[in-house]
Amino acid sequence: MSELVNVAVDAMGGDNAPGEIIKGAVEALQESEKVKVFLVGQEEVLKKHLAEFTYEKDRLEIVNATEIIETAEPPVNAIRKKKDSSIVKAMGMVKAGTCDAYVSAGSTGANLVGGQVLVGRIKGIERAPLAPLIPTEKGVSLLIDCGANVDARPSHLVQFAKMGSVYMEHVMNVKNPKVAIVNIGAEEEKGNALVKETFPLLKNCPEINFIGSIEARDIPAGLADVVVCEAFVGNVILKLYEGVGSTLIKKVKAGMMTSLRSKIGALLVKPALKETLKDFDLEQYGGAPLLGLNGLVVKTHGSSKSIEIKNSILQCITFKEQQINDKIKEKILLKDE
Amino acid sequence: MSELVNVAVDAMGGDNAPGEIIKGAVEALQESEKVKVFLVGQEEVLKKHLAEFTYEKDRLEIVNATEIIETAEPPVNAIRKKKDSSIVKAMGMVKAGTCDAYVSAGSTGANLVGGQVLVGRIKGIERAPLAPLIPTEKGVSLLIDCGANVDARPSHLVQFAKMGSVYMEHVMNVKNPKVAIVNIGAEEEKGNALVKETFPLLKNCPEINFIGSIEARDIPAGLADVVVCEAFVGNVILKLYEGVGSTLIKKVKAGMMTSLRSKIGALLVKPALKETLKDFDLEQYGGAPLLGLNGLVVKTHGSSKSIEIKNSILQCITFKEQQINDKIKEKILLKDE
Repeated sequence: MSELVNVAVDAMGGDNAPGEIIKGAVEALQESEKVKVFLVGQEEVLKKHLAEFTYEKDRLEIVNATEIIETAEPPVNAIRKKKDSSIVKAMGMVKAGTCDAYVSAGSTGANLVGGQVLVGRIKGIERAPLAPLIPTEKGVSLLIDCGANVDARPSHLVQFAKMGSVYMEHVMNVKNPKVAIVNIGAEEEKGNALVKETFPLLKNCPEINFIGSIEARDIPAGLADVVVCEAFVGNVILKLYEGVGSTLIKKVKAGMMTSLRSKIGALLVKPALKETLKDFDLEQYGGAPLLGLNGLVVKTHGSSKSIEIKNSILQCITFKEQQINDKIKEKILLKDE
Repeated sequence: MSELVNVAVDAMGGDNAPGEIIKGAVEALQESEKVKVFLVGQEEVLKKHLAEFTYEKDRLEIVNATEIIETAEPPVNAIRKKKDSSIVKAMGMVKAGTCDAYVSAGSTGANLVGGQVLVGRIKGIERAPLAPLIPTEKGVSLLIDCGANVDARPSHLVQFAKMGSVYMEHVMNVKNPKVAIVNIGAEEEKGNALVKETFPLLKNCPEINFIGSIEARDIPAGLADVVVCEAFVGNVILKLYEGVGSTLIKKVKAGMMTSLRSKIGALLVKPALKETLKDFDLEQYGGAPLLGLNGLVVKTHGSSKSIEIKNSILQCITFKEQQINDKIKEKILLKDE
């Protein structure tokens, strides 16, 4: 058997911790023989939960961490002070090389700060973007950056575009992924100062398949595989996806309940509808990688259930096997020198 | 009878011009006795179309304009050179005071530039924002600014907040409208440089009901009546609303067609569903006003059908009757001095 992929899992982070986190970890072990999980959290609590599951004991280790970083805590402070928290300890294992990757449903702020400060950026990478997959009509696109670095500079966006390309090509198997920059019109002269400055830089990148601007309307249609934007705009896109989706689904459900006729119809369409709409549920796609770090950091939704944790852990295997970080270094750093 | 509200209508702008524009104008005349329409465009073409309709002749005038500004034309140039275009001529009528308001489904760029250059801003107003109504679970919210002024300054956003408040209170009848700024977290210390600088300014505005930050996720839920943001972000929000909406509706339809059972169900739910989803169709709400100008400029979708044109024309009546521009002057300018 080849070497295992070691994944540190923050067992205490997220609304459904530790129950769903542990369940997801066990499911990942059952689904793939290539992974070993280090569950980081309060030992006694974790042991009690684990007693309910059957799994290969030598591919799961508990690492005791007594403290918990809460979602509302100011992240910089929390990371600095809570040395024995699950986030700080688990990230430390990636930094030390004990683990290849890290998965957490805990505080976004603490994970972003911890990623940059504790795990650290690959030398030459200016910023580490958060890059979730978002559902589209054609499959999924990578939205990069989605909340990690507000007020980014053009050179950051160019690195995001390259890292995103590597990820989509080698983790998601999209050949020659189409890269576009979010803009308020399709023409090159449109946009705000940041976009106008970034556009020609992207156009002059032979390493990526830059197709130009993308208007927000065309993102759900899947016109680009890698959707580049600065973090503020990316965060708005991600959250509006969720917001419009949830409001519309509520409207559809309410619409079906307005008459007896439609209620009967609703019973008939429900199973098929549920199946189709599953593709449009952001939580199906595992977590969002924080790219450009010395190791992989994956941030999943705070509300993650076991399936999202499982998918996030499995995603780490591909990341390691495909040597994504080496490819990022190759694409970005060698070219820059 | 009280004085008529005079509305100049760009009969040549939009994908469905002049047919749907003329139809919408006639429908507006039929629905309200308070309005007079000046159809601006190629006289012979308009006359031919008008021959099909019955309407009160003395409340509709044709104003000949031989040129047409196309959507793809660089706006500044087009406005400068095509003096006999429908946009330039119709806006000139507002500037001259012949008309109170102006409605166009034509080139967004030309309308934005024309609004600022030809109609002109109210003295003291720094920027004129484009402010469409967007559907929410609770009704509608005003999204301001939505594409007119990229790279805005904090003082612009404060004026947008005040103008938006006046509009929602007096045109849309929302008492003490809740104003929020689009942000990537609810806490005051979150955000990019622009939002961080604007937040305390809004907090110190006694003239508006500022409720703090709003995350994009909560916009469709209707948590704020006036959603303040700079134009780039506003444009992304508006277009993503359309994009996610259209993709989801496609998915729902496809989901209903996957089995015989669901197809039968679809027939039963269709009428009720259609009715509910109508509320979520942006085109139901007429056009977007460009606020802060010497007169009202309303920009409707390029794809406007007659209903949107009609609603936009009727919207002008309320705007005039409620003396919105006087109220804007009062709220913004007196306070500033």
